[in-house]
Amino acid sequence: MLKVEHIGIAVKDLAVSIPLFEALLQTPCYKTEEVAGEKVNTAFFRQGETKIELVQGLESGSVISKYIDKRGEGMHHIAFEVADIHAEMQRLAAAGFTLLNAEPKEGADNKLVCFLHPKDTHGVLIELCMEKR
Amino acid sequence: MLKVEHIGIAVKDLAVSIPLFEALLQTPCYKTEEVAGEKVNTAFFRQGETKIELVQGLESGSVISKYIDKRGEGMHHIAFEVADIHAEMQRLAAAGFTLLNAEPKEGADNKLVCFLHPKDTHGVLIELCMEKR
Repeated sequence: MLKVEHIGIAVKDLAVSIPLFEALLQTPCYKTEEVAGEKVNTAFFRQGETKIELVQGLESGSVISKYIDKRGEGMHHIAFEVADIHAEMQRLAAAGFTLLNAEPKEGADNKLVCFLHPKDTHGVLIELCMEKR
Repeated sequence: MLKVEHIGIAVKDLAVSIPLFEALLQTPCYKTEEVAGEKVNTAFFRQGETKIELVQGLESGSVISKYIDKRGEGMHHIAFEVADIHAEMQRLAAAGFTLLNAEPKEGADNKLVCFLHPKDTHGVLIELCMEKR
């Protein structure tokens, strides 16, 4: 793990949350991006070497919408940047962590990503991410 | 806000969680510290310019123990480092955010801290922190 690449926050409505986080963080949202595979829309804010990512579900069946129905809005995941996502997935699987996808998949922000099951990490949903080359 | 100073994770038992996060992050826990005022024990891991802070309640009445009873273990708060905590508290109160303490209080890791009510921040518990001088 190289650093915390971003912190993901589940929200119901980016149109409401973007201006609120701009006021809170005193920094503009520099990008919004739809991730079709995940049925989400995302919005990004820089904060030092880390980003805050707001995530809104695009339909009621999306993972984010289901999460909000169950838990409400709030912190959703921590994403760590890794140097080699395949090697890190192999290392963590061997250490007993459960990978939620067997192969890296397309994430927001030009990344390949893999999630770890929160049952192994005290309820924290962990994302590994690596810049696509 | 200067950077994400740390991400707080509520756990039931540091003795279980510390070795797990050491394996996950491939970095040693470099410090544990009791915060008597909050009735918690904490454990820290470096991750780039940010830290991961595990927080365990020291008695059933602690805020963290109550949080785990209600929501289970998992992500608890995001702490942002600020240059001047008094000025930032004043700015955020004027912007309509609710401060959970009217004056900065003693946090872990030689910090003065202030929390914002998550009702104003889409369910995210935000901590402001500044190194004590």
